[in-house]
Amino acid sequence: MSEVEVKNLQESLQDRLGQVVDLLHKQRVVEDLTHRQEGQHQALVENLVHRQNVVELQRKLDDLHSADIAYILEALPLEDRLTVWQLVKAERDGDILLEVSDAVRETLIADMEDHELLAAAKEMDADELADLAPELPRDVVHELMESLDAQQRERVRSALSYEEDQVGALMDFEMVTIREDVTLEVVLRYLRRLRELPGHTDKVFVIDQEGALKGVLPIKRLLVNDPEKRVSEVMANDPVTFHPDADAYEAAQAFERYDLVSAPVVDKNRRLIGRLTIDEMVDLIREESESEVLNMAGLREEEDIFASVWRSLRNRWSWLAVNLITAFVASRVIGLFEGSIERLVALAALMPIVAGIGGNSGNQTITMIVRAMALDQVSTGNTRRLLKKELSVAVLNGLVWGGVIGVVAWLLYHSWSLGLVMTAAMTLNLLLAAFMGVMIPMSLAKLGKDPAMGASVMITAMTDSGGFFIFLGLATVFLM
Amino acid sequence: MSEVEVKNLQESLQDRLGQVVDLLHKQRVVEDLTHRQEGQHQALVENLVHRQNVVELQRKLDDLHSADIAYILEALPLEDRLTVWQLVKAERDGDILLEVSDAVRETLIADMEDHELLAAAKEMDADELADLAPELPRDVVHELMESLDAQQRERVRSALSYEEDQVGALMDFEMVTIREDVTLEVVLRYLRRLRELPGHTDKVFVIDQEGALKGVLPIKRLLVNDPEKRVSEVMANDPVTFHPDADAYEAAQAFERYDLVSAPVVDKNRRLIGRLTIDEMVDLIREESESEVLNMAGLREEEDIFASVWRSLRNRWSWLAVNLITAFVASRVIGLFEGSIERLVALAALMPIVAGIGGNSGNQTITMIVRAMALDQVSTGNTRRLLKKELSVAVLNGLVWGGVIGVVAWLLYHSWSLGLVMTAAMTLNLLLAAFMGVMIPMSLAKLGKDPAMGASVMITAMTDSGGFFIFLGLATVFLM
Repeated sequence: MSEVEVKNLQESLQDRLGQVVDLLHKQRVVEDLTHRQEGQHQALVENLVHRQNVVELQRKLDDLHSADIAYILEALPLEDRLTVWQLVKAERDGDILLEVSDAVRETLIADMEDHELLAAAKEMDADELADLAPELPRDVVHELMESLDAQQRERVRSALSYEEDQVGALMDFEMVTIREDVTLEVVLRYLRRLRELPGHTDKVFVIDQEGALKGVLPIKRLLVNDPEKRVSEVMANDPVTFHPDADAYEAAQAFERYDLVSAPVVDKNRRLIGRLTIDEMVDLIREESESEVLNMAGLREEEDIFASVWRSLRNRWSWLAVNLITAFVASRVIGLFEGSIERLVALAALMPIVAGIGGNSGNQTITMIVRAMALDQVSTGNTRRLLKKELSVAVLNGLVWGGVIGVVAWLLYHSWSLGLVMTAAMTLNLLLAAFMGVMIPMSLAKLGKDPAMGASVMITAMTDSGGFFIFLGLATVFLM
Repeated sequence: MSEVEVKNLQESLQDRLGQVVDLLHKQRVVEDLTHRQEGQHQALVENLVHRQNVVELQRKLDDLHSADIAYILEALPLEDRLTVWQLVKAERDGDILLEVSDAVRETLIADMEDHELLAAAKEMDADELADLAPELPRDVVHELMESLDAQQRERVRSALSYEEDQVGALMDFEMVTIREDVTLEVVLRYLRRLRELPGHTDKVFVIDQEGALKGVLPIKRLLVNDPEKRVSEVMANDPVTFHPDADAYEAAQAFERYDLVSAPVVDKNRRLIGRLTIDEMVDLIREESESEVLNMAGLREEEDIFASVWRSLRNRWSWLAVNLITAFVASRVIGLFEGSIERLVALAALMPIVAGIGGNSGNQTITMIVRAMALDQVSTGNTRRLLKKELSVAVLNGLVWGGVIGVVAWLLYHSWSLGLVMTAAMTLNLLLAAFMGVMIPMSLAKLGKDPAMGASVMITAMTDSGGFFIFLGLATVFLM
């Protein structure tokens, strides 16, 4: 992507979005009028106004950075989004398609003709093409591949051969390479001849005849060292490197930990095959945290906020269905004790407290654990210790808050034994919540699943059924 | 921070953590033995083994990057953490203190003598000192400030004068500045004389005599342009700049959107006063998503997973207490209808289904909205539309899943009217969940609060009390 020069950053994104929405609104009012009015003269005037609005909107859009247009497209409902998309200059289509989220990209691509898609895609680098290819119509991809030279085609193929979460799918091929036996002076002259350097070039890669990575020359060192020195004297010999089949999220964490801007990707023989840059890694860090939040609530990640109702339903149904089953199980647990409830109706009013506090507390524990696992701080070695801590917290919470609610139950229903059962049930259910809050994400991880997956639904299922069973069971044994 | 050269990145962090834990474990076994055994000879042998272990551990630590040691310290329980901390070379204390999380940093500082803290702090830049200062003992800070020169002291003061979430608190002062009327050749010579460039220098700042920012010269352009050209011909005139009192998180989003590596911070008169770098912004993006996840579950952010039980309790109590009150309210709602439940005990078994599905569905909605708000995609302009979409999803979910559960209720309890009440209650509670899921975070934001704050606890409170009231109310009206 080209050099960033953004105008009016002082205007917040929200303001810019507001302006676009205003202009869209004006235009729509005019359109409505034009449709309604019959007189030719009026239609003509309104057509003029309409055209003026369009021109103003177009000018506004031309002033905006592609990333900002992407943001605006994401924040607009489908109809408005497509109106804006039509007004964007064709040569910017490619940049913007690469910036928007997957769900929004799909709606934009669906609105484009094949020849528009081809034109947009022809501007792209191999790694960008590979990003886009899975969402393009088959024949467009085919025609596109035909138009590439052998090296580019090979690169697109290679990028496509990796899973989405592997380093290989995120690397680009814009590497500046040099030999170790030349002087810095020669390197400086060589760079000058390139006329342009790829974005995020904070180091150039030093390779031998076979293309194997010998080291990296940070631009900082290139600038401050004597130009007479040789690259081999100045380069870093043992840089952080990544393998194309490594986990991309781990690479992102390494970027974060070691404050990297770019890093070489090498194959098994240390041949340089690509590079990773911080901008891709930042996007990844953002996406990972997003999908974690969404996963915990039992949502998949593809839903944008203006997705159609139908798409939203599909996104949410799988976990709602699970929840329906777990709620039904909890209901049957209560069903087991209908006799007790008939005899002491207070049980019906008190049982949701036991279940609710358990659910809340379990959610706190599971959130902590999922977070810590995402940061790689939990290993099997410290499970016991974590469990011990969470169980201690649960016992104390149970005795204190369970005690409080026990006293309240005693005052309300004038039965100290009911209060005692309440306190005991709360404590036991909090213990269950703590235990499950630690074990659910750990077991999911052991099974190779995402530990955040539906965590909230699952822990609530446990604390509901468990809470009802514990409370009603204790009540039946001790109060009936 | 110095140039990154990391050894053995191929070894995962988990492995390295494992090795340290093993060594710690060995050492502890030896210590236990030494305490237990009386014989002098044995003690001597074990002392030797013990010392060997310590040496091995120390060697291991010396090989690790400061960021990795920080990670290991965070993943260790307090006692082990302090053992490792004692073994870390004193000259690395500062670097590591800057890398660890706030909660862990507090435990490390508590374990250090004043003179150790002073020594560690003396290595730091002004912005790093300002980061650390609030957590240091008063007299250490005082002595430290005395030892600084006037400019440094001024910088620390200025950094401390900003809130944690303002750009001013995150900027550093390691700027390379040049004049616009010199040639690139002169700039290159000037840089060479500096001997070292600050980390993340992807551009140098062009200022006039008054120190006002005229533009930036990207290193990329410096390298590829003719050295005879003047800075003014090559520089970017309108770079992205930030004000020190701007919101830091918005700055981070701008870094992400515009793929920045560094950016100038200017005051009202466009005087250059500092710079922001991508590494600080990445940390911020990470922290924001973390606190969002934790806030939704009603946790504050300061708890590390090995925090003491007491600290964990304090972290979780405020929202648990809120939850206790809301659960009590829900219980009283049921209490209102004890008469109905006594007459039809099936109500007690069915009511948690209505409340549970509502809670789950409300959590899905609120998670979506909080996410979209964090990404700035929600404005008052599109509230109505969002609400309409969420309510449509709720009606459909209510009719479909409510219908299913209504049929199940009919089959279980042989009452079609009970089934109908169930379906109606589910639909209404899902509508309530959708409405509250949109309105709670929006209202919190309007009140200037974090929209994620306890979102999960609040929505569950609504759907519990609401669900019980709707279901039992409908049942009382139509079935009694």
